[in-house]
Amino acid sequence: MKIFVINAGSSSLKYQLFDMPSPDPVCSGQVEKIGSAAEIRHSVTGEKPYEIKRATPAKNHGEAMQEIIQLLTDKTFGVISSPDDIFVVGHRVVHGGEAFSEATLVTEAAKDKIRQLFSSAPLHNPVNYECLVLAEKTFLKAKQIAVFDTAFHQTIPAAAYRYAIPSKYYDEQQIRVYGFHGTSHKYVTGKLAKYSGKLPSSVISIHLGNGCSMAAVKDGRSVDTTMGFGPLAGLMMGTRSGDIDPSVLLHFAEHYKMSFEEISTLLNKQSGMSGFTGTNDMRDVRKLINAG
Amino acid sequence: MKIFVINAGSSSLKYQLFDMPSPDPVCSGQVEKIGSAAEIRHSVTGEKPYEIKRATPAKNHGEAMQEIIQLLTDKTFGVISSPDDIFVVGHRVVHGGEAFSEATLVTEAAKDKIRQLFSSAPLHNPVNYECLVLAEKTFLKAKQIAVFDTAFHQTIPAAAYRYAIPSKYYDEQQIRVYGFHGTSHKYVTGKLAKYSGKLPSSVISIHLGNGCSMAAVKDGRSVDTTMGFGPLAGLMMGTRSGDIDPSVLLHFAEHYKMSFEEISTLLNKQSGMSGFTGTNDMRDVRKLINAG
Repeated sequence: MKIFVINAGSSSLKYQLFDMPSPDPVCSGQVEKIGSAAEIRHSVTGEKPYEIKRATPAKNHGEAMQEIIQLLTDKTFGVISSPDDIFVVGHRVVHGGEAFSEATLVTEAAKDKIRQLFSSAPLHNPVNYECLVLAEKTFLKAKQIAVFDTAFHQTIPAAAYRYAIPSKYYDEQQIRVYGFHGTSHKYVTGKLAKYSGKLPSSVISIHLGNGCSMAAVKDGRSVDTTMGFGPLAGLMMGTRSGDIDPSVLLHFAEHYKMSFEEISTLLNKQSGMSGFTGTNDMRDVRKLINAG
Repeated sequence: MKIFVINAGSSSLKYQLFDMPSPDPVCSGQVEKIGSAAEIRHSVTGEKPYEIKRATPAKNHGEAMQEIIQLLTDKTFGVISSPDDIFVVGHRVVHGGEAFSEATLVTEAAKDKIRQLFSSAPLHNPVNYECLVLAEKTFLKAKQIAVFDTAFHQTIPAAAYRYAIPSKYYDEQQIRVYGFHGTSHKYVTGKLAKYSGKLPSSVISIHLGNGCSMAAVKDGRSVDTTMGFGPLAGLMMGTRSGDIDPSVLLHFAEHYKMSFEEISTLLNKQSGMSGFTGTNDMRDVRKLINAG
């Protein structure tokens, strides 16, 4: 049973092909820098392993996906004979809002809800959606399954997910804590249960990547997390500020005459480890520390 | 030795007169709603105690102060014969920035620094400054002493006071955690030491008023606090939101087309307990709870 898994970022597209029940991927790869100088890396394991790394003209996620499918189905070194060999396509979708508390079969109704969350995750949900639609058109015999970063955190109680702002903003726009990295925190909690023989009652799970978050997990259910409405709050990250006094944003506007877009760029892309040190790569930070 | 203490808020002016070494005030009072329907309450203790409560035409802090001085020096029921009887005037100044780590004699240089912090505490520092200047002109023989809300927190280490944003904003505008309610946290820590016989190594001090904050105090020195650059961050308060994902502010701007001023008003004056329940008075909140 062949399962194709897609993880689309704002300018990247990662993928893996599994032939279940084997837990090891038959093939995996990623297209990076989609839209600028895109590059593809494609690795095949098994009897005839090989790796391809090359520039690609892909200008968007659609073109990147076409190139991936071409590689997967290549007559000489492809791993499937046709897109119809794929039984399930799994999509990572960043924002599932309050609509999704678990992995979900993609229906038209589900697609509507994912579209409604574009403004809550503008860098991610639109490309996730684009890949969903492309996959539907390409893998005609496959079921499409969406897995949400927010789903694991839907068990967080209202006392932890509501902000102390007038209820109208929750009622109208569902402004609340969602939390992200849910698949990671769920996986870590599960692994911990496996290694300890039983699930500890209280777990603090820490996800450290370019994005970082912590989750408090009580009896296997997320009860609080450091990220919030979007993936900007909480811990300091690679390029994101994490928590910051909201009055700093107002000061940026007042003193520096920055627009909301400029503030968003500053806090999302030019802050965190990168804002402090000039790089968001910990290896480079260590070099800087060692160099004094 | 007569000491006159002034605590000026954005629309209020509280005061007490002490005749040291007695720790009990000779007289105390407050003018509230300065600028709209101002009202004064003035209480005198001692041999001939009395209380005055009446409307006042005071349109600003200067006029409020003139009324207070008139009451203090009233020929019939005043407690001092002339402003020259006052030896020290103590001023609460909300924001001392990085310039002040303790109570300070008010010099021209100190006044300059307090003025430079107007934009960091726009509701408080300008009225604090106005009262300083008025007191200098009124209490001609008194020394003016400023006590800062931020001073106690100047021992917080950089790891806790720096935000994960590019250093330029700290270098240029000293954007960092300052913390507030320092006089309260210092007082609570001191009282705790007195009651326990010695200062506990680790103290968590909690200030709950219309503004709320917590401070972590290690060996008598503040090492972290919930408030930040301004008095908006941290705990949920009477009308202030406390911590909120900065991306919520960006969403307010994008979706609701709110200006920075509108967002500031929303988060500072219409959020917190008031935003949730319609009132920032816990007695009314309890009534609402009891009423179901």
